[in-house]
Amino acid sequence: MRAALDAAGAAAAVGEVPVGAAVVRDGAIVAVAANAPRTLHDPTAHAEMLAIREAARILGRERLEDCDLWVTLEPCAMCAGAIAHARIARLYYGAGDPKGGAVEHGPRFFAQPTCHHRPEIYAGIGEAEAGTLLRDFFRERRG
Amino acid sequence: MRAALDAAGAAAAVGEVPVGAAVVRDGAIVAVAANAPRTLHDPTAHAEMLAIREAARILGRERLEDCDLWVTLEPCAMCAGAIAHARIARLYYGAGDPKGGAVEHGPRFFAQPTCHHRPEIYAGIGEAEAGTLLRDFFRERRG
Repeated sequence: MRAALDAAGAAAAVGEVPVGAAVVRDGAIVAVAANAPRTLHDPTAHAEMLAIREAARILGRERLEDCDLWVTLEPCAMCAGAIAHARIARLYYGAGDPKGGAVEHGPRFFAQPTCHHRPEIYAGIGEAEAGTLLRDFFRERRG
Repeated sequence: MRAALDAAGAAAAVGEVPVGAAVVRDGAIVAVAANAPRTLHDPTAHAEMLAIREAARILGRERLEDCDLWVTLEPCAMCAGAIAHARIARLYYGAGDPKGGAVEHGPRFFAQPTCHHRPEIYAGIGEAEAGTLLRDFFRERRG
């Protein structure tokens, strides 16, 4: 989660909403990414998507059933769907997201009967730091 | 939808689940894509994601509020989330997908109170041909 939090900080520094993610396999980081939709002109470029795609590219396969995903914010529906498609084993996330989250909020994607893959889910990891990054970012933009 | 159906046929020819998508702006196709997670080693490489990402790249912006998406199958949660993030104006899709769909099935993403953007939605366009492509594909794989 340290790497994901650092990536989130880097995102804030370039004006992106500060969210970071890391894919971990056998205790080693395979890929780390920061949220970058504005920079990349890509509406799908959330940190989770970029980290999952990069890990799949590096491992040369579309399924990451031996990998865990660490992300600083509760994933949205798009990212939750990608986590299921990638067959991620464990999902660790920081702050909950009542507005855009799709794990414990909104569509509660993994609780749907049609969900074809549910990772083990651990919430609240690094929550304080992840939340502070987001609050500071939005406070600065409003001010 | 013709272009999306042709892309779906092309996907089947290389062993991918036959789904195709096109992004259209002012009556002209901006991007067409076929489902390609196996070919690209990318669990997020659904036809909708590839078409949205390519259109955003071509137009040089992360929001496609003046674009429509045509896709042969009901989008999953990942793709529905991407459609919302991209601010797609209208969604036209072919066959419904009771197993993986997230528009009229499962999470019903666009009907969630937390959904921040809902396109106009038109279902059943080209449904017969889209469904036949999928049925033939899965019948052949089982046989």
